[in-house]
Amino acid sequence: MTRSSREKVVAVAGATGAVGEVLLRVLEERNFPVAELRPLASERSAGTTVRFRGADHHVEVARPAALDGADFVFFAATGTLSKELAPEAAERGAIAIDKSSTWRMAEGVPLVVPEVNADALDGHRRIVACPNCTTIPFVMVLEAIHREAGLGRVVVTTLQSVSGSGKPGLEELEAQTGAVVRGEPLHAEFYPEPIAHNVLPLCETFRDDGYSTEEVKLALETRKILGLPGLDVAMQCIRVPVPVGHSLSVLIETQTPLDPDAARRALAAFPGIAVVDDPSRNVFPTPARAAGRDEVLVGRIRRDLQSDRLWLFICSDNLRKGAATNAVQIAEELMARGL
Amino acid sequence: MTRSSREKVVAVAGATGAVGEVLLRVLEERNFPVAELRPLASERSAGTTVRFRGADHHVEVARPAALDGADFVFFAATGTLSKELAPEAAERGAIAIDKSSTWRMAEGVPLVVPEVNADALDGHRRIVACPNCTTIPFVMVLEAIHREAGLGRVVVTTLQSVSGSGKPGLEELEAQTGAVVRGEPLHAEFYPEPIAHNVLPLCETFRDDGYSTEEVKLALETRKILGLPGLDVAMQCIRVPVPVGHSLSVLIETQTPLDPDAARRALAAFPGIAVVDDPSRNVFPTPARAAGRDEVLVGRIRRDLQSDRLWLFICSDNLRKGAATNAVQIAEELMARGL
Repeated sequence: MTRSSREKVVAVAGATGAVGEVLLRVLEERNFPVAELRPLASERSAGTTVRFRGADHHVEVARPAALDGADFVFFAATGTLSKELAPEAAERGAIAIDKSSTWRMAEGVPLVVPEVNADALDGHRRIVACPNCTTIPFVMVLEAIHREAGLGRVVVTTLQSVSGSGKPGLEELEAQTGAVVRGEPLHAEFYPEPIAHNVLPLCETFRDDGYSTEEVKLALETRKILGLPGLDVAMQCIRVPVPVGHSLSVLIETQTPLDPDAARRALAAFPGIAVVDDPSRNVFPTPARAAGRDEVLVGRIRRDLQSDRLWLFICSDNLRKGAATNAVQIAEELMARGL
Repeated sequence: MTRSSREKVVAVAGATGAVGEVLLRVLEERNFPVAELRPLASERSAGTTVRFRGADHHVEVARPAALDGADFVFFAATGTLSKELAPEAAERGAIAIDKSSTWRMAEGVPLVVPEVNADALDGHRRIVACPNCTTIPFVMVLEAIHREAGLGRVVVTTLQSVSGSGKPGLEELEAQTGAVVRGEPLHAEFYPEPIAHNVLPLCETFRDDGYSTEEVKLALETRKILGLPGLDVAMQCIRVPVPVGHSLSVLIETQTPLDPDAARRALAAFPGIAVVDDPSRNVFPTPARAAGRDEVLVGRIRRDLQSDRLWLFICSDNLRKGAATNAVQIAEELMARGL
């Protein structure tokens, strides 16, 4: 058997995190050819077990020696860990598929959403980056529209769930929601202000120019993936008290006018997108509808009242297509291409 | 004493609703010259009492005879009631100040945010309309920018709290939040889908063209108040699981470039606006910060990375400045003008 057709040794760094746990489920669901699973984590989580295909697997410390003999190493942990270990994985002949932001904008590192730019995998150097959880649904929709009518200016406001910050975000929302119901004061520990019954116009941290790191990633990654370095993307990112599911409110200018029905057809035909759009029956995307699904949901597709621009509302499971599913699809695509 | 200087007979239709209750508090706080308070409501709520200046006041049925001798009638109830009773109030010599959408776009009815267009009150015909709770903070910010640099295209995504739908919205969020904490399924009764731990890209109801009634109101009212009938406003309105406090994510094009510091100064100098904008210390507007305050909070004021447009994030208490406070300010302005 050739290397590309045999079953794989798969390491998952960050296996006990919010994305890592979903990644194990996605590997199971998609029947990924796993010969051996190696769940890895920080020293704090090492020694625990994770469940995979009906068996418990011991979690080991993520360190270079744990990568020996691996075919794929999925990184679903901190950027610091990816920075240190992804080159170690590559050096050992594995392919690192990184969900952190560390490698995304690096020269020679493909930044891939398979439905959009699988060809970017050609010539990879054993490190492949998975985009930000907000970027992934965004570029899928933009690519579908771009192929049909070309992209002009794009304006986006995101409404991002707390699981985009990993388990600490989920735990903070849960604790504060309990406090709301008990009528107790809300303590903000992980986020700078309470997130329950509130929204925060901050995802991640602020840069000196007043933009959040999340906002800048969204714009830069979008341009790299679409191969449109001059694309005009104006963005504001907001955290909302939703456990899972990122939403995007998007206004798109096209190079040639695209009527909503044509846009709807183009989106429905695009792999991985489901059009959920029947206002007459109050049918539209919501994060709750998107949670647990791999499809990117798009609805409220309509023409701006004063121009040819298109409004859309997008929802996507940030742990699945926004992270784990996309990472596993990258591995599948590499195998299909014999890379 | 002239009519304009004596204490007033004040009727409040919808006195037991979410806005009505806050309106009574605002009349107290602002020491509004109330000679007699007449709380009115539907037959369902009539017979209950409301508290005003330390005394209980019986709620009577809102009907024409209850308006005899009133100076001001605040309408904080359904549009149907305003449609029927506002002309009755006017006929009796009272001034109707209406928070419903019924009269807002009517010819000859001033639609007023006192800080923006108090002069529109001149020549009123005893019915004055109070704008939508999202429109009010929006036009205050737009007016401040417009005076400084002229307005070009504006793009806005709103994140609206459930109290914008009145008590039923608040009760639904509360019931569903309890169910979330108890791990029970969420029942949607008032909104078409659960709002707890979710967001819905629908405020009010959909029109045949796919826009929500809320979206269209926002655009039309903004143009009328600002006196800019051709203003290009592209808008999407979203309901979020927040009890009180509407947020707006806004991108503004100006006719002449306006740098963020100049915008910050213009906003800070505008009456009723508080600039809350220090990203280096994680200080920004949130609905929780805005709740209970009359000021419209504005922050995240920054230049778009690829153009001269300005990004802003606005939060405002939709029951206070978005409704009750603005209505009382209209009455105060009418008195000051001897109208």
